[in-house]
Amino acid sequence: MIIQLEKNISAEQKADIIAHVQEAKFKVTEVDTQRANYLVGTGKADVDLRTLGQLPGILDIHRVSDEYKLVSRKWRVRPTVLDLGDGVRIGEGSLSISAGPCSIESEAQMEKIMQHLVDNDVRLMRGGVFKPRSSPYSFRGLGMDGLKLFHQMARARGIKIVTEVMQVSQVEEMHDYVDVFQVGARNTQNFNLLDALGGVDKPVMIKRGISGTIEELLSSAEYVFSGGNEKLILCERGIRTFETASRNTLDLNAVPILKEKTHLPVVVDPSHGIGIREYVMPMALAGVMAGADGIIYEAHEKPEEAASDGQQTLNFTESARLIHNLRKVYALRQELEY
Amino acid sequence: MIIQLEKNISAEQKADIIAHVQEAKFKVTEVDTQRANYLVGTGKADVDLRTLGQLPGILDIHRVSDEYKLVSRKWRVRPTVLDLGDGVRIGEGSLSISAGPCSIESEAQMEKIMQHLVDNDVRLMRGGVFKPRSSPYSFRGLGMDGLKLFHQMARARGIKIVTEVMQVSQVEEMHDYVDVFQVGARNTQNFNLLDALGGVDKPVMIKRGISGTIEELLSSAEYVFSGGNEKLILCERGIRTFETASRNTLDLNAVPILKEKTHLPVVVDPSHGIGIREYVMPMALAGVMAGADGIIYEAHEKPEEAASDGQQTLNFTESARLIHNLRKVYALRQELEY
Amino acid sequence: MIIQLEKNISAEQKADIIAHVQEAKFKVTEVDTQRANYLVGTGKADVDLRTLGQLPGILDIHRVSDEYKLVSRKWRVRPTVLDLGDGVRIGEGSLSISAGPCSIESEAQMEKIMQHLVDNDVRLMRGGVFKPRSSPYSFRGLGMDGLKLFHQMARARGIKIVTEVMQVSQVEEMHDYVDVFQVGARNTQNFNLLDALGGVDKPVMIKRGISGTIEELLSSAEYVFSGGNEKLILCERGIRTFETASRNTLDLNAVPILKEKTHLPVVVDPSHGIGIREYVMPMALAGVMAGADGIIYEAHEKPEEAASDGQQTLNFTESARLIHNLRKVYALRQELEY
Amino acid sequence: MIIQLEKNISAEQKADIIAHVQEAKFKVTEVDTQRANYLVGTGKADVDLRTLGQLPGILDIHRVSDEYKLVSRKWRVRPTVLDLGDGVRIGEGSLSISAGPCSIESEAQMEKIMQHLVDNDVRLMRGGVFKPRSSPYSFRGLGMDGLKLFHQMARARGIKIVTEVMQVSQVEEMHDYVDVFQVGARNTQNFNLLDALGGVDKPVMIKRGISGTIEELLSSAEYVFSGGNEKLILCERGIRTFETASRNTLDLNAVPILKEKTHLPVVVDPSHGIGIREYVMPMALAGVMAGADGIIYEAHEKPEEAASDGQQTLNFTESARLIHNLRKVYALRQELEY
Repeated sequence: MIIQLEKNISAEQKADIIAHVQEAKFKVTEVDTQRANYLVGTGKADVDLRTLGQLPGILDIHRVSDEYKLVSRKWRVRPTVLDLGDGVRIGEGSLSISAGPCSIESEAQMEKIMQHLVDNDVRLMRGGVFKPRSSPYSFRGLGMDGLKLFHQMARARGIKIVTEVMQVSQVEEMHDYVDVFQVGARNTQNFNLLDALGGVDKPVMIKRGISGTIEELLSSAEYVFSGGNEKLILCERGIRTFETASRNTLDLNAVPILKEKTHLPVVVDPSHGIGIREYVMPMALAGVMAGADGIIYEAHEKPEEAASDGQQTLNFTESARLIHNLRKVYALRQELEY
Repeated sequence: MIIQLEKNISAEQKADIIAHVQEAKFKVTEVDTQRANYLVGTGKADVDLRTLGQLPGILDIHRVSDEYKLVSRKWRVRPTVLDLGDGVRIGEGSLSISAGPCSIESEAQMEKIMQHLVDNDVRLMRGGVFKPRSSPYSFRGLGMDGLKLFHQMARARGIKIVTEVMQVSQVEEMHDYVDVFQVGARNTQNFNLLDALGGVDKPVMIKRGISGTIEELLSSAEYVFSGGNEKLILCERGIRTFETASRNTLDLNAVPILKEKTHLPVVVDPSHGIGIREYVMPMALAGVMAGADGIIYEAHEKPEEAASDGQQTLNFTESARLIHNLRKVYALRQELEY
Repeated sequence: MIIQLEKNISAEQKADIIAHVQEAKFKVTEVDTQRANYLVGTGKADVDLRTLGQLPGILDIHRVSDEYKLVSRKWRVRPTVLDLGDGVRIGEGSLSISAGPCSIESEAQMEKIMQHLVDNDVRLMRGGVFKPRSSPYSFRGLGMDGLKLFHQMARARGIKIVTEVMQVSQVEEMHDYVDVFQVGARNTQNFNLLDALGGVDKPVMIKRGISGTIEELLSSAEYVFSGGNEKLILCERGIRTFETASRNTLDLNAVPILKEKTHLPVVVDPSHGIGIREYVMPMALAGVMAGADGIIYEAHEKPEEAASDGQQTLNFTESARLIHNLRKVYALRQELEY
Repeated sequence: MIIQLEKNISAEQKADIIAHVQEAKFKVTEVDTQRANYLVGTGKADVDLRTLGQLPGILDIHRVSDEYKLVSRKWRVRPTVLDLGDGVRIGEGSLSISAGPCSIESEAQMEKIMQHLVDNDVRLMRGGVFKPRSSPYSFRGLGMDGLKLFHQMARARGIKIVTEVMQVSQVEEMHDYVDVFQVGARNTQNFNLLDALGGVDKPVMIKRGISGTIEELLSSAEYVFSGGNEKLILCERGIRTFETASRNTLDLNAVPILKEKTHLPVVVDPSHGIGIREYVMPMALAGVMAGADGIIYEAHEKPEEAASDGQQTLNFTESARLIHNLRKVYALRQELEY
């Protein structure tokens, strides 16, 4: 159960509500976010919410039987829309496009990709400075120096930054240079990292785990939300299956399912989802038609020279065509009655 | 390697070509379809096709290194379009829509669904009379009596029939009442059935196996083709993964991959692909945007009373809206440059 | 629910029982096997078995809520042991070892492998004459001529034959030359084949589907049993997963789970289960320790020259060592209290 | 390529070797462990190791083409055996048994389980104080206070501690109270954590990722090794598949495959591997027969009252019987020629 508390609730009122909920055999967790204060009750008992709801200090009360609570659409029906400032929004009502290289490599590289984004009116740039690599001997990114340069160049062009955070100690370090913290597919269940991101006031995009279920993705989002940060985005990026003809199996089923289960924005990453440059376009368009609020993909001036993921990265011609088509497809989706 | 023979080739010429190919350490299989005559050579040796190609009696010769040969687009670049007569086509240049119940249940049921199809200008009806069921105690379909009635009613309305064949002995029995033989996901590697369907002159739609790879699907198609029947359609219908929030994981990645690997038409079954009524629409539209040549889905006057698969079956209101949207999305796809 | 009928039940008594069961909202299926006569009731209603059980003509009545009924151990607690004659048994109380080549190739080949089996006191030989192959251009087996020779040579040496049947029409054809019909992993849900095998009086070994669940395997066995044939063996042979370091993932978890869920014997195929010769031994021994009633594996005089599956086939030295070890491990298992 | 350097190598000699390796188009990583100093060369070029090997300062040089290098058995043929002190060893030559509760709950609980271990001559106790939980509202462990008590009680009884570390900041904090750091299945690719564990001088047991490949597990071990810590143990604990009859699919295939690919000890966790108490015994015994160097399982005085994982936890009677049987099975394995 979720209880949203009134802003001006007194300590006595709150203690009284907690006592009542515990009496009903529910465990209570207090959740204070930048936006509001909640009590989350977990338990199996049956309880009469109407009686409970009449206690003073309660703004709203809902039954949510899922493992995840605060991210559930059963509780918050209106879709969450994140405002990144300067007119950049993620969530229902617009199609959010993010593009950029797998890894930030150099000033010259960023110069070019940012010009490409500006030319195509794309306001969000992805790019990794801390790279999770399965081998310790692979290139692991430019680190904080790269991020600072990234930030400075992006600010000058009105571009917002999406970049991966890999560990707790980086959260604070990266904070001032990032617009959206990305949690990678290998860290979807790095619970300490999720806890730490609960403490920041910037949006967090959580990628689905390599073989993570939809429910686990929602539970990971619940970690960040219950840690205090309501600014969340979920990302479908393909799951691991037996099929070897593609890098991953992009699970577009997850899009309509997530859109019904949660109020959070859902974006699709077709680059990792199929892993083959030629097919990124159709999968991105399919993602929009499945209901995605945004598309995040890899682009590079010369994909064949990219430090990583070149085989799934679009060049600027392909990228420009994709952006054009994405907007056409999204416009049609807005017209259709689903 | 594939060698297409001239129509008027002499027995001596053919024997001579075979001898040359065998000399090059290739195993030769003679394939005679309703359309043409081929020699398929399988082997690992390196051979000079130009020299070989000069032998009299050879119309065309191609190297195809995949396990599958005749269904490969490396050999036949132009997409195959199947003509079912009466203006019904499957393949590039149009979007083929097939709808109907999981199981044929009664004359009254068919009457209603056919009227719905006619009203919406849909020319292909799916519906099972032989039903593969995991339990021997479940309803297994109306059998041949159902099919005969299905055929009679469909003919009267200009509707073409897509229905599943489960075993070799049914191929002949069903032949005159069927427009497209469907091979179900549990029979994708029923090689005797595929062999038998190589002998008929009607289109065969092969569904991807429950955990079948894209390559296995193509090899199954190769069985039918090499058995003599070039009229083939491939169907992506979801694969089995760890995810339990959907019935199957619709692998739309398979659509652009198949479209590049083979010249055969590719259709998508969103009903089995996600298994939840509310989400059939977005997945069907996504399938079109991924590049599908057709959509096949389940519809029923009263899904909640259907003999099987009711939970993933659209009612007529939903179905009409889907048909309308499918055509809009397909029209947009035709406009876009991919 | 399962009702075992008395042998001398009258038609009236039977009709009366059926009427009572149907009245309780259960669908009734009559099952007559070579061993006994049953009524299987499927439905969701709650019914008082004690009252029902007092009707004349009922020998025994059990509630079985699983999808599968007659193969369930909830009903028949005592393990099924199959007697193949000449002292060859499969089931609890002994460890059944079957070995032989993937494909029957020639008289000389069989001569050698049979001598190897006789030398090591192994009484069951596996070997395919109808081979399911993913490509139509691969070797598909020697067919009935091969089987007849196989049968003649095996009979002369007191060896029993386990071989794969691929389609309905082969069941009758193969019947007199086979001791155990094997249903391959691609045919686990070939329901027509299962139905047909319900009509024979010889044991049927069903391999788990390539991505078949344990429950589906039991339901496939239920097909054969409810078709009239109680002589069944289940075989774990590895499932398809994302792991590519082995051919399949041998799911030994299935062994103790199946042993509790069903009264049927359970055997393990380590050759397909891991697919790499060097590791067949440890996986076979692990299979015994997990509780298998038998092991079936591939052996060949010269694995590197085998017509198929050479990479997972043991030579005679390895095979002899495995047989020796299997018996040691089984002897220890008999001593231990689990 | 791996180059083991001589202990007394000069800076000039080392620089010279590095220069030669780089000239051959290899990237060089210097690895200094508590045991020795290495250069790891990664690249695709072909190089003559004999010439290179004659440079002064090189003790040993090997070509290792796998992604993982230092953990490969191609380089170090002799199995690694870890000595935890007080006669407790992990690796070939003995069967290492670890048991204990999922979570450390209380002094009374530890008292009982430790007595059980002492009674059965088990020297390693597992037990979590930091618990990764998919829901933020679940019990997350007693933390450092629990660990300190655990350590004090274990030391008094000659018991060694295996416990999970979840994040970088805990490594130092936990260091003095832990005998084996466990990296959980959700952290197998938490590369920062692996890096940090490269800096400690205590053994690290890495569990296979929830859907991690065998190769990824080895690469994760390579992280720790190349970070400076050679004391590694790998643990097979089941992978995620489509099968729902068990919690995970214990992949015992991984045991012989890992034993050949790496010199590191391999242990099996049957509790998580199957997730059902009744079947832990057969899977543990199967694990030994597959070649495991150790078994780690969950035990609790009253599994039904355990704070977590009760459904897969053995009570003391079951645990004592398992320990007895494990030793019998291991003794037999030592006798057999594989």
